[in-house]
Amino acid sequence: MHDEDVHVTVDQIHLEAELAGDVTAIASPEVAEYSLWLGDDALILAQQLGAWLARSPELEEDMALGNIALDLLGHARSLLRYAGTADGRTEDDLAYWRDEPQFRSAWLFEQPNGDFAHTIARQLVASAYQFELYDALRASTDPTLAAVAEKALKEVDYHRDHAVQWTLRLAGGTEESRARIIRALGDVWPYIDELFRDEELLDRLEGIAVRPSTLRPAFDTVLAAVLGEAELAEPRGFIASGGGRHGRHFPTLGYILAEMQVLARQHPGATW
Amino acid sequence: MHDEDVHVTVDQIHLEAELAGDVTAIASPEVAEYSLWLGDDALILAQQLGAWLARSPELEEDMALGNIALDLLGHARSLLRYAGTADGRTEDDLAYWRDEPQFRSAWLFEQPNGDFAHTIARQLVASAYQFELYDALRASTDPTLAAVAEKALKEVDYHRDHAVQWTLRLAGGTEESRARIIRALGDVWPYIDELFRDEELLDRLEGIAVRPSTLRPAFDTVLAAVLGEAELAEPRGFIASGGGRHGRHFPTLGYILAEMQVLARQHPGATW
Repeated sequence: MHDEDVHVTVDQIHLEAELAGDVTAIASPEVAEYSLWLGDDALILAQQLGAWLARSPELEEDMALGNIALDLLGHARSLLRYAGTADGRTEDDLAYWRDEPQFRSAWLFEQPNGDFAHTIARQLVASAYQFELYDALRASTDPTLAAVAEKALKEVDYHRDHAVQWTLRLAGGTEESRARIIRALGDVWPYIDELFRDEELLDRLEGIAVRPSTLRPAFDTVLAAVLGEAELAEPRGFIASGGGRHGRHFPTLGYILAEMQVLARQHPGATW
Repeated sequence: MHDEDVHVTVDQIHLEAELAGDVTAIASPEVAEYSLWLGDDALILAQQLGAWLARSPELEEDMALGNIALDLLGHARSLLRYAGTADGRTEDDLAYWRDEPQFRSAWLFEQPNGDFAHTIARQLVASAYQFELYDALRASTDPTLAAVAEKALKEVDYHRDHAVQWTLRLAGGTEESRARIIRALGDVWPYIDELFRDEELLDRLEGIAVRPSTLRPAFDTVLAAVLGEAELAEPRGFIASGGGRHGRHFPTLGYILAEMQVLARQHPGATW
């Protein structure tokens, strides 16, 4: 057991590096834009989850959220690297040197960490969406996107399981924990709609990209099952305007980017 | 490759949990105190490295430091859990509900992240020390400490390799990067001495604990080799008083603990 265990860390780093290195195909401008959508979603969520590594209420949870953040960062690197092939930019150029209007993340991923229940509610929606997305994207005629999806799917499957278990645990815990997960689900619900909009770009990526509207029934089934098991009503309320795919973002994104980009911008070239 | 790759994450979490769960022996008060020394070193360093997950100057480095932080957190959990067996406290009790004077970390681990070169210099010293420590601790007559050391050693071996490679890269990079690693090594050097002091407690742990003074020659040899290859002179200067094993800490620790403990203390019981 010890041997396997140790290899985990080193292998994870090497394998992630390998995967990022695998991206040798050149993306068209349309495919690059689509890669940014998916990559920015993963990058922004990873950055936000990273904050828990230093401050979650349980050491075990520290590690779980830290591992999920690293998975998402791995997906983001592959997708950003692929996007960058269209015009010769690196993954670091795209992560650290774009300003807010150039980011393409959806508002759900930009929702604040809030309390732990908010983070779990955001994880539930994000992972259930990404699971359906990557499951379908494995059939993409673009081999790079198909390979990224294949790898990401199994990790996101674990993320979804983690979020479902926590949702049930909070809903079935104390009165306080139940009240918190109900409030948190209500707070993230308005941002679901944007995830499933068929943007115009998709008309030019037939067979390559996934039409998110086609994923909605499966997503709804999963969420309904979780809410049913937790004996929670589906939240009602407004639908947020969104606009992340067009560079219009939730107010939090500016702060997330400021923290993420400050060091790279202070020291262009990364190693001085 | 994809299959293995995915299992990495899930296995890592399960294996870490398993290891932490493995601690079923009951520590004596002396062994508990010794476990706190080692566990707090790892915990404080993990918390500090976690801050890089959201802001290192390269995405690849984000992942490497994040993985190292998670390794250290795993070591800390095992050691704190073992320490807690002496008086019925959990790893979370020990991480979140002790105040500064009850922590046992050495000052080296409490040194601030600084710029990236400072983090690397701290990693170089920390990992070179921990490598020798865990290598020797594998022969402990305490089976729990021996098992923790066996697991930690191979991970720390990678951490040391990572720090050595970065030290060489910074020293051999630009004039600016070389100046920064020289300054950073000078800044952490005063805190080496404390790591190798044979505290009085060790007289009561013959065969169980490692006398750190016995590790110093091997540590010096490794550091001299790295400095030689990097064509850097050994820093000179004062020796810090230290006192972490007795609850006297570097001024940074209060801030690190404040950030680490705020949520757990706001919500005792972790899940409300």
